Amino acid sequence: MTAHATLDHIPREILCAADYEALAPQFIAAPALAYIAGASGEERTLRANRRAFDRWQILPRLLRDVTAGHTRSTLFGRAWQHPIALAPLAYQTLVHPAGETDTARGAAAADACLTVSTLATCPIEDIARASEGEKWFQLYFQPKREATLDLIQRAEQAGYTALVVTLDASVQSPSRRALRTGVSLPDAVNLARYGAAPQRALAADASVIFQGAMREAPTWADLRWLLSATRLPVLVKGVLRADDALALGEAGVAGLVVSNHGGRALDGVPASLAALPAIRRAVGRDLPVLLDSGVRSGSDIFKALALGASAVLVGRLQVYALSVAGALGVAHLLRTLHQELELCMAMAGCATLAEIDSSLICENPDVDPD
Amino acid sequence: MTAHATLDHIPREILCAADYEALAPQFIAAPALAYIAGASGEERTLRANRRAFDRWQILPRLLRDVTAGHTRSTLFGRAWQHPIALAPLAYQTLVHPAGETDTARGAAAADACLTVSTLATCPIEDIARASEGEKWFQLYFQPKREATLDLIQRAEQAGYTALVVTLDASVQSPSRRALRTGVSLPDAVNLARYGAAPQRALAADASVIFQGAMREAPTWADLRWLLSATRLPVLVKGVLRADDALALGEAGVAGLVVSNHGGRALDGVPASLAALPAIRRAVGRDLPVLLDSGVRSGSDIFKALALGASAVLVGRLQVYALSVAGALGVAHLLRTLHQELELCMAMAGCATLAEIDSSLICENPDVDPD
Amino acid sequence: MTAHATLDHIPREILCAADYEALAPQFIAAPALAYIAGASGEERTLRANRRAFDRWQILPRLLRDVTAGHTRSTLFGRAWQHPIALAPLAYQTLVHPAGETDTARGAAAADACLTVSTLATCPIEDIARASEGEKWFQLYFQPKREATLDLIQRAEQAGYTALVVTLDASVQSPSRRALRTGVSLPDAVNLARYGAAPQRALAADASVIFQGAMREAPTWADLRWLLSATRLPVLVKGVLRADDALALGEAGVAGLVVSNHGGRALDGVPASLAALPAIRRAVGRDLPVLLDSGVRSGSDIFKALALGASAVLVGRLQVYALSVAGALGVAHLLRTLHQELELCMAMAGCATLAEIDSSLICENPDVDPD
Amino acid sequence: MTAHATLDHIPREILCAADYEALAPQFIAAPALAYIAGASGEERTLRANRRAFDRWQILPRLLRDVTAGHTRSTLFGRAWQHPIALAPLAYQTLVHPAGETDTARGAAAADACLTVSTLATCPIEDIARASEGEKWFQLYFQPKREATLDLIQRAEQAGYTALVVTLDASVQSPSRRALRTGVSLPDAVNLARYGAAPQRALAADASVIFQGAMREAPTWADLRWLLSATRLPVLVKGVLRADDALALGEAGVAGLVVSNHGGRALDGVPASLAALPAIRRAVGRDLPVLLDSGVRSGSDIFKALALGASAVLVGRLQVYALSVAGALGVAHLLRTLHQELELCMAMAGCATLAEIDSSLICENPDVDPD
Ligand SMILES: Cc1cc2nc3c(=O)[nH]c(=O)nc-3n(C[C@H](O)[C@H](O)[C@H](O)COP(=O)(O)O)c2cc1C
Ligand SMILES: Cc1cc2nc3c(=O)[nH]c(=O)nc-3n(C[C@H](O)[C@H](O)[C@H](O)COP(=O)(O)O)c2cc1C
Ligand SMILES: Cc1cc2nc3c(=O)[nH]c(=O)nc-3n(C[C@H](O)[C@H](O)[C@H](O)COP(=O)(O)O)c2cc1C
Ligand SMILES: Cc1cc2nc3c(=O)[nH]c(=O)nc-3n(C[C@H](O)[C@H](O)[C@H](O)COP(=O)(O)O)c2cc1C
Repeated sequence: MTAHATLDHIPREILCAADYEALAPQFIAAPALAYIAGASGEERTLRANRRAFDRWQILPRLLRDVTAGHTRSTLFGRAWQHPIALAPLAYQTLVHPAGETDTARGAAAADACLTVSTLATCPIEDIARASEGEKWFQLYFQPKREATLDLIQRAEQAGYTALVVTLDASVQSPSRRALRTGVSLPDAVNLARYGAAPQRALAADASVIFQGAMREAPTWADLRWLLSATRLPVLVKGVLRADDALALGEAGVAGLVVSNHGGRALDGVPASLAALPAIRRAVGRDLPVLLDSGVRSGSDIFKALALGASAVLVGRLQVYALSVAGALGVAHLLRTLHQELELCMAMAGCATLAEIDSSLICENPDVDPD
Repeated sequence: MTAHATLDHIPREILCAADYEALAPQFIAAPALAYIAGASGEERTLRANRRAFDRWQILPRLLRDVTAGHTRSTLFGRAWQHPIALAPLAYQTLVHPAGETDTARGAAAADACLTVSTLATCPIEDIARASEGEKWFQLYFQPKREATLDLIQRAEQAGYTALVVTLDASVQSPSRRALRTGVSLPDAVNLARYGAAPQRALAADASVIFQGAMREAPTWADLRWLLSATRLPVLVKGVLRADDALALGEAGVAGLVVSNHGGRALDGVPASLAALPAIRRAVGRDLPVLLDSGVRSGSDIFKALALGASAVLVGRLQVYALSVAGALGVAHLLRTLHQELELCMAMAGCATLAEIDSSLICENPDVDPD
Repeated sequence: MTAHATLDHIPREILCAADYEALAPQFIAAPALAYIAGASGEERTLRANRRAFDRWQILPRLLRDVTAGHTRSTLFGRAWQHPIALAPLAYQTLVHPAGETDTARGAAAADACLTVSTLATCPIEDIARASEGEKWFQLYFQPKREATLDLIQRAEQAGYTALVVTLDASVQSPSRRALRTGVSLPDAVNLARYGAAPQRALAADASVIFQGAMREAPTWADLRWLLSATRLPVLVKGVLRADDALALGEAGVAGLVVSNHGGRALDGVPASLAALPAIRRAVGRDLPVLLDSGVRSGSDIFKALALGASAVLVGRLQVYALSVAGALGVAHLLRTLHQELELCMAMAGCATLAEIDSSLICENPDVDPD
Repeated sequence: MTAHATLDHIPREILCAADYEALAPQFIAAPALAYIAGASGEERTLRANRRAFDRWQILPRLLRDVTAGHTRSTLFGRAWQHPIALAPLAYQTLVHPAGETDTARGAAAADACLTVSTLATCPIEDIARASEGEKWFQLYFQPKREATLDLIQRAEQAGYTALVVTLDASVQSPSRRALRTGVSLPDAVNLARYGAAPQRALAADASVIFQGAMREAPTWADLRWLLSATRLPVLVKGVLRADDALALGEAGVAGLVVSNHGGRALDGVPASLAALPAIRRAVGRDLPVLLDSGVRSGSDIFKALALGASAVLVGRLQVYALSVAGALGVAHLLRTLHQELELCMAMAGCATLAEIDSSLICENPDVDPD
């Protein structure tokens, strides 16, 4: 089966945000789809991410007047129309020739904050120009500190308003699905100018993991350096432990993203949603805590907010929507999620995000098997 | 496959009440069936409704003399032969040309209280004439208060003895199943004389949910108005929270229907049965608390009563029975449920409804997966 | 497919007792199999019976000397070689021309106590003659007390050493499986001489359950009468509640059979094994408490004993073995179960039944789905 | 399908250690595979072993510097490069002509301790010569004590550095899978010189289990004799109870292997991993406690260590790797497991085995069904 070309309209099959996932296989070639849909190891965390949302139910309140309702909030000193942002996703030209620039257009059209990956396939400056909306830059530490610094400065100059440093992916390897289909990834154009990583020979009894791959992994010292090296707020992505969250808050990060990289980092870690409540309790009410991994609907977002999230990031759905209908698809996806959230709030009797708290949810006695 | 015409006898395949659900696909055209069987969103609440009954087991008492047994009770000041009533179901001509009038005949034949939907496809006056039995009118608040008032007065005059105001369906949308088959719904004839809802333009940045659909949703103020606008007892349908239940009781409603609209309102809310015990505890023993959503057998009814319900309403099964054998089917369905309840009582050693309490049930250690 | 004729040897496919269940469909005609294998309602209790055994694991003790091991015990004042008896099963000529007499021969050959049903298809006197071993008579109360008394006296004279009065089947109806295949049951020859039950007209508003079927159901008064009407020890079969168990013990019964009739009485009741611990706690250590429903292997028996059973009764497996190889099959089944129990004891470090206690088992964290 | 001949390279399909299990059916004839893959009874313990690992999740710690990381430890007074050893597996010529000698070569190449079964199909002296690495001898007590003693002395002389006495397999019978395919096992060459077990007639009423098979089963007296009969450290394999573990430690064993024989001893016992925490608590921190049964990946090993294991043994995977690529396969399997463990440690922020403790794991709220 060949993948369809991107449409210039939203197909009728799309009845809800999650339908983009169902439709994507018709628009993305199989190897690229395996790369995107797959996750690490046995994909246990991938499945856990979805099930974690099923573990909660919504307990709607009746007869509330929500006619003045809205989804606005203030995050990092700025007004957000809704708590739905785009997660950083590498290599978007895999699914659409315009890649991240079209995603940026879609995000801007839907008033959604966009996070651009270090591994974008369009120059980050071009992406920035494609959107007047809020946009963040996702940073992977580079083998050479100069390269990291250069990336930061380019992001600052291009108008990105925050850095999201991703910490859970020190060792990256394609999923087994992807290895089996033999995907070939495009270039991460933004890294081209920094040259290849320095080759260092490993001692005979050295470990390719500890002394090899982990040589470039960021440590607390690197994070402290980063915090001093930029004027932008720094969010840390990939937090799953309450003790790490607390220490990060004390170290001065501007916010956290509770995330397991959509199941693509270490397989077998908890669902992000499962990790969220303890993290929110640890850091208190003031530090912004975002969440991603598994968000597929407005009711997922409602549950994340009820459990303490300040906002959510949407990962795979964004490239599925991009593959189906380009910028239009991305904008439609975001608007659909927004509307699903509003519907859920309205029917649960919540007029504002602040009203969504844990009294509106309860544990699901039976979780659906996959 | 074309749907069979309604039969003039009960087919041999019907061995229990739930068999009407299995047989219905042969008697209802696929789009109408999708509309009826379907539920909102992922249909999680639809599944939860069934599983909630599986979470309980019955602990039968031996050697009791039940030869004087019966299922009578007094509810809302009237004698009921059994605690099984019909839930309000819209658009019944979808499955049978005589629609709600035949349902009314069936209910009367089986001594069952009938609830007629605002969205009936027969005039509520005609339906009332078709039954000498107990009948209630289910009210949806109308955009114009005059229309709501007119509906109430028509119901009062037609002989309906209670109003059931449904509060969990402020935003209604067909299920995805229904959207995919493209069902077309008949007219809600009783609303014809009130004209279309007033069109009001939405502000550019307004939400189609909060400032749109929810504009007409009832609030506490509307409920208080309703209580003052009718001399009939008012039941509230769609309650899932104990705090709402308590407040409604204090506001003066005559009874509650613990319901999630058979999974057709907000998807992801708890099963009605799961919500029941806390609600019964909150309101105490005196306020009638009915339950619907998922009732398919006499043992389901037994469990609902053991967990605090005063009676149950039967939703989808009624139209399945109507599709199979018209009024005869509805009467047979109700008699079968009644007999299944009696069998369950007899074998559990209960001679009266009052004897069915929580000492007769226990938690099921393993819930069957779907 | 036609059912095979009974074999004169044990087929090689039989590697364990439970294999008789797998093989039976080749030896029993489909309608009879539906009657035997089926259970009431949704067959939830049928499934629960099996799952209840899976809820427990065995924690084997190492290095015990069990070379003097055995499975003997004293029950009702008599020596038992092993704690495995045959449950009463009606209508055994359905699966084998020699019916209950062959079962009796098989039981005797395997030193197993036999329970003969009121609804046997061979005269109870003939069955008694076919076995020199221990045998009990299962009593269903008859519409006429004279008939009940006559049955008791025939059993006493024929050499039955205990009465097992079954209390959980006041209303009997074939399973839906059986109704769908249209089985026709043979005559219960032992009841022929008592004539048909007296026909009494029901009042117009009477219930066919309460005033109909339950008219003949035994009550506490009937049980007290029975205890005074026989010199045999009376066991009560069908107990699931601790309070009933306690009251029965106080009323003077000689023993209890914790049973749900293999899922054939009220559907939705707990597994027998799940009900056992509370019953053993209620009656203390002295009253014999037997268990049936779901026993398929030696490790099932081990678990039942560890949870407080004095012995177990084997239901369906006996007619499966009878269908495969007649008396030989029944004897082989019983010897296989016995050996499986011994193996389990040996590997768990138990030399006697008395050593099998709850310290040898633990809860299974994950129960296999069906 | 005929089984492929062993390869001289690692096939591309092997992406992780567990893939050897998926590939093995192409390299092992069906009867031998049934013998190896199968387990006793219903294979409930076999499944439980895998699920037990799924019951835990890993909670990774961020930003740790692990560039000095390693997996070394000291066990039984010797330096281990990593905590991954080979479990004793009988009859390895079933899958590869070179049998245990090739396994030994693979183990040595990967710095892994090897355990050679009493039932090896190569002489234990030859196997010892094939490996300069650490190697242990697994002892089954023999019917004649002289034979047992001779085996011990041969092991001592051949350079084995510990005895692993297996206690959970007093009665051995092939799995039902194996019986159904009719596998024929090769000779256990090392036992040839001891002649057949003495035949003793059983008394007529004796049990083939208690007085038969268990006659040769080791008891506490035998274990005490063994401890006095060898200068080698003695590990006991097959421990699942905390009380046994404590008593064994007090009796002077050098270490324990928490094991259920990969589900091949008594079916229905707990997963080894489930039994581990209580055993570690009972014996304290000092006694080495190894674990096997179900280990398939580096994250399994991580979880076992976090729950108290000192090291793990790998069972079936070793013969699967042997069947695929001989000594090369075994070495590759062990290196892959080692690397998977390192990756897991690195991504969880652990630089040494000592850092892997229970704060790094948490219970999985939802266990995947099989
Ligand atoms: C194809 C793909 C590429 C990704 N690339 C990056 C990346 O470059 N940087 C990053 O921090 N996260 C990356 N992620 C993780 C996402 O930011 C996000 O955490 C994850 O997709 C959320 O889960 P979801 O897909 O279930 O929404 C990627 C995820 C996918 C699926
Ligand atoms: C086709 C259909 C139409 C319905 N129409 C109405 C309605 O008009 N008013 C209302 O209050 N509830 C309506 N309901 C909800 C039912 O009253 C009831 O709550 C639900 O069907 C109970 O669940 P059950 O179908 O599992 O018995 C409808 C349900 C169905 C299936
Ligand atoms: C075909 C069939 C007939 C039965 N007939 C009787 C009976 O006549 N009297 C009785 O007390 N129990 C009867 N039982 C119930 C059994 O005595 C026993 O409780 C049940 O079979 C135990 O469950 P099992 O089949 O899982 O072992 C019958 C069960 C079956 C399957
Ligand atoms: C084919 C096979 C043969 C085995 N032979 C022995 C043996 O001779 N001695 C022994 O102690 N354990 C033996 N075992 C058990 C293993 O040592 C080990 O406990 C088990 O395989 C661990 O489970 P795993 O296969 O899931 O890793 C054998 C296991 C298998 C699968």
